Amino acid sequence: MNREMVGITVVSRDRKGIVATITNFVFTRGGNIENMNQNVVQGLFGMYVEASFQNLNIDSFDADLHQIATEEELDVNIYHTSSTQKNIAVLVTKERHCLDAILDAAATDGLHGKIAIVIGTQSTLQPHAEKAGIPFFVIPERDQGKAESQILALCKQYKVDLIVLARYMRILTPNLVWRYPRRIINIHPSLLPAFPGAYAYQQAFERGTKIVGVTSHYVTENLDQGPIILQESFHVDPTDTLDSIKARGQRLEAQTLTNAVKLHLNNSLEVHWRKVHIKKE
Amino acid sequence: MNREMVGITVVSRDRKGIVATITNFVFTRGGNIENMNQNVVQGLFGMYVEASFQNLNIDSFDADLHQIATEEELDVNIYHTSSTQKNIAVLVTKERHCLDAILDAAATDGLHGKIAIVIGTQSTLQPHAEKAGIPFFVIPERDQGKAESQILALCKQYKVDLIVLARYMRILTPNLVWRYPRRIINIHPSLLPAFPGAYAYQQAFERGTKIVGVTSHYVTENLDQGPIILQESFHVDPTDTLDSIKARGQRLEAQTLTNAVKLHLNNSLEVHWRKVHIKKE
Amino acid sequence: MNREMVGITVVSRDRKGIVATITNFVFTRGGNIENMNQNVVQGLFGMYVEASFQNLNIDSFDADLHQIATEEELDVNIYHTSSTQKNIAVLVTKERHCLDAILDAAATDGLHGKIAIVIGTQSTLQPHAEKAGIPFFVIPERDQGKAESQILALCKQYKVDLIVLARYMRILTPNLVWRYPRRIINIHPSLLPAFPGAYAYQQAFERGTKIVGVTSHYVTENLDQGPIILQESFHVDPTDTLDSIKARGQRLEAQTLTNAVKLHLNNSLEVHWRKVHIKKE
Amino acid sequence: MNREMVGITVVSRDRKGIVATITNFVFTRGGNIENMNQNVVQGLFGMYVEASFQNLNIDSFDADLHQIATEEELDVNIYHTSSTQKNIAVLVTKERHCLDAILDAAATDGLHGKIAIVIGTQSTLQPHAEKAGIPFFVIPERDQGKAESQILALCKQYKVDLIVLARYMRILTPNLVWRYPRRIINIHPSLLPAFPGAYAYQQAFERGTKIVGVTSHYVTENLDQGPIILQESFHVDPTDTLDSIKARGQRLEAQTLTNAVKLHLNNSLEVHWRKVHIKKE
Repeated sequence: MNREMVGITVVSRDRKGIVATITNFVFTRGGNIENMNQNVVQGLFGMYVEASFQNLNIDSFDADLHQIATEEELDVNIYHTSSTQKNIAVLVTKERHCLDAILDAAATDGLHGKIAIVIGTQSTLQPHAEKAGIPFFVIPERDQGKAESQILALCKQYKVDLIVLARYMRILTPNLVWRYPRRIINIHPSLLPAFPGAYAYQQAFERGTKIVGVTSHYVTENLDQGPIILQESFHVDPTDTLDSIKARGQRLEAQTLTNAVKLHLNNSLEVHWRKVHIKKE
Repeated sequence: MNREMVGITVVSRDRKGIVATITNFVFTRGGNIENMNQNVVQGLFGMYVEASFQNLNIDSFDADLHQIATEEELDVNIYHTSSTQKNIAVLVTKERHCLDAILDAAATDGLHGKIAIVIGTQSTLQPHAEKAGIPFFVIPERDQGKAESQILALCKQYKVDLIVLARYMRILTPNLVWRYPRRIINIHPSLLPAFPGAYAYQQAFERGTKIVGVTSHYVTENLDQGPIILQESFHVDPTDTLDSIKARGQRLEAQTLTNAVKLHLNNSLEVHWRKVHIKKE
Repeated sequence: MNREMVGITVVSRDRKGIVATITNFVFTRGGNIENMNQNVVQGLFGMYVEASFQNLNIDSFDADLHQIATEEELDVNIYHTSSTQKNIAVLVTKERHCLDAILDAAATDGLHGKIAIVIGTQSTLQPHAEKAGIPFFVIPERDQGKAESQILALCKQYKVDLIVLARYMRILTPNLVWRYPRRIINIHPSLLPAFPGAYAYQQAFERGTKIVGVTSHYVTENLDQGPIILQESFHVDPTDTLDSIKARGQRLEAQTLTNAVKLHLNNSLEVHWRKVHIKKE
Repeated sequence: MNREMVGITVVSRDRKGIVATITNFVFTRGGNIENMNQNVVQGLFGMYVEASFQNLNIDSFDADLHQIATEEELDVNIYHTSSTQKNIAVLVTKERHCLDAILDAAATDGLHGKIAIVIGTQSTLQPHAEKAGIPFFVIPERDQGKAESQILALCKQYKVDLIVLARYMRILTPNLVWRYPRRIINIHPSLLPAFPGAYAYQQAFERGTKIVGVTSHYVTENLDQGPIILQESFHVDPTDTLDSIKARGQRLEAQTLTNAVKLHLNNSLEVHWRKVHIKKE
């Protein structure tokens, strides 16, 4: 008796009745709600429902839900978990080490997924993507809302399942994060929760910590607070400078991000609340 | 077409399937889920569902849900919003000013509610309650979990609708907080979010703030983070000392807590996410 | 027996011996050290010494100290407190309300000081300064270190005693802050320590606080942490929107910043550690 | 031309003139001030001066300074750095692992110091000290100020040079901390700055971190913020529970604290601002 899991994300302006509308629909189709959360940030409402179904007619389910979405002016995405190859979008700015590691893993067939596109806030890393035969899109737009509209459009066009932030230097807004629940992986250059924010190596160096590390994690609407997938670290030597610490850290970033992405694509990760459990093969 | 609102709280050890069990029950009884949230803290699961029903047979609803709760080993409370007089439990430690103000308001018939019991971590304020003819219970138990079991038992016995923390000096655990969603009001001696914690006046004085204030708020499982109901403040004079600031603050605490309780009992408060809207009379 | 107060600031790369050099000099000239602090941020050393002297020959003191500074490669500024009219530099970005209030106060002779220059990160407010007959300099440089070099040069040229940040939207680095100890006044749109940072009104609105306010304070190298001079606040109405809160807040900002500047110029403020005492007239 | 280092700590009620008094004394005796800091916490003033001298007559210096201290009602301690064996006080509560490791190191002559006394907030670990032939004192006093008076008296009596906090569960006040600048070493069960406070393992476990660690550091008046000496860590296994994490952590605590104490006693540690440099042998 296999139940199929479906993920539904809803984003809309905040008003009453949305929860009832969506949950009623799920139940009338015989779904069990396994997990649900909602939040409002600056008047924007986001909701995620994970439901399990038996004998689901995917096409009519999707069509009917989208019909309701149109009538109710809700922005609804439906995600059916399947075992087909996953499409990946990698978001970058200018640091190359993480992108290169992921491109290498893809080239050597080490990823159970296909890198569909690379999106950069600038064109610096375009040659890297092109050399690997992957479309590169520059979205230099400074307004993050507008930039994300373009990113979402591309992700829709290329049927992206997983977004990988490879030292992408912007902060994603809830509007994008809510649409890819547990499907955005970031690498942060510290051992979270220490040193969140943009100056992690510098702050760790100033604080005089003797262990420095990196964290790969799923992205939620709370910056650097999502479930932690993997962490790696190294001891600071007396001869280390801020530059040598960054260099050592970057090697770990590339490694740790790639490994987290592999585990996700292998369906080895189970997230329960804020904790990630790595299933044995 | 009046729909009746029902609040269901569930507390249990964390396991799968609880959300589905409860939401399925609500839907099979014709309920619309208006609001839902869940959280896990240290392996303890808490869930709150607000659902609206038409033509609800309260007795059979409650009986059936409690039956399921027993079978599934869930600790379930059902709260039917009604307009009957509300029973209030006031929790205290040793400061008298807030308790006295609430007792006065009750005596002069200024509260649309009845103070059913006063519970103290010590017996200091017992005379105050007894003089007002209200049962006073001392729960000196140091272990907060055990203390809360006793508090919950008393609140159940006296059919308490609202818990008022009148300078009660312990930190409530999620196990109690989750059972009274939006039905626990606290007074904190600062203008939150500044100076959370136990030394608010002292910290404000040390920081050299020129405005000091108090905050009445609903209690959630995150300390001092619940929706703010009312805030009041005063300017610090050059001649103020820490003691004079505390004295001025305490008068405001008594006033602000009592006003917040009155607004709640008059059904004047509407909570949407983290913001409290005060409805005009 | 009147002792004259002298303030000495030293900024240099971090190395040993600086404290000894400066304090020895002060003592050989008969100075009493009343107050002293040092700090290092990212390899840059800053030190401030307040010393009192009797019968000080200002010219030879300054010349000899600058001689030592040159030999030791230290960046030294000497500030002699006097009662002559103070020169003020006002730093702005694009919001006009605070600048206008200060210009008005200066025009009506309400400031015991002269606004020597206005410096903007953009040219938006240039007409306001020019209309008042005050030189306006645009420093649009994005690199804050380079921008501050230009600011410091102008402040030196115009013999600036007090820097007023009138909704200036950059964060000053220690390199500038250390050179004007207790001589930089900022206005922050919240009741500090609540809501530090760039989105104060928005965060207060999201948090649902019922009291919103502003804080004028001396600037130190720790953002929004300096000694508080004045605070003012207002109650949030049910009908308030984020925009109406900003509008109400801005009127208070203009008022509170101007009043803080007046108190400073009148020598009415006494700072002891982190607390500001307002002396009665 | 060897200069001798002297450390002077002053604690008194906050008033003007203390800095001048002490620094003048240092200079009239030919001292160079190498380092100085002062702070006020809740009306209590603390100051530390590190000065270097040539040809210092220690006895007359100390006698004269204590004379001034008496006249000015200042609580002054003078610390002359020397190479004689250091006396150590170990402060404990009930956890045994750190105390045992330090006692072992002392027994095997692995410490360049002598454990003079062990002080416990309770008597639990008394047998451990007595078995090693070391005096054990119970100071169960709940009022931390009174407890610290007793601790300071014992440290004075036993001429203690270094205080080691071996899972001592109280928070030291500035009154004690200021008297042993860079001479109090603590072990904290997390990788600071992550998870400061009393529930580090539990919070790390709840947060789902994949790396857990410990930090040995010098104690300052800011809780868990002092210069970091050593850090060690381990990866969390999928099979780890909170208890297994604590067990693994405790072994690291014992090791890391003992190593930090050894480095300190070997004069291998150089503290510059907030960073600790480990000198090679």
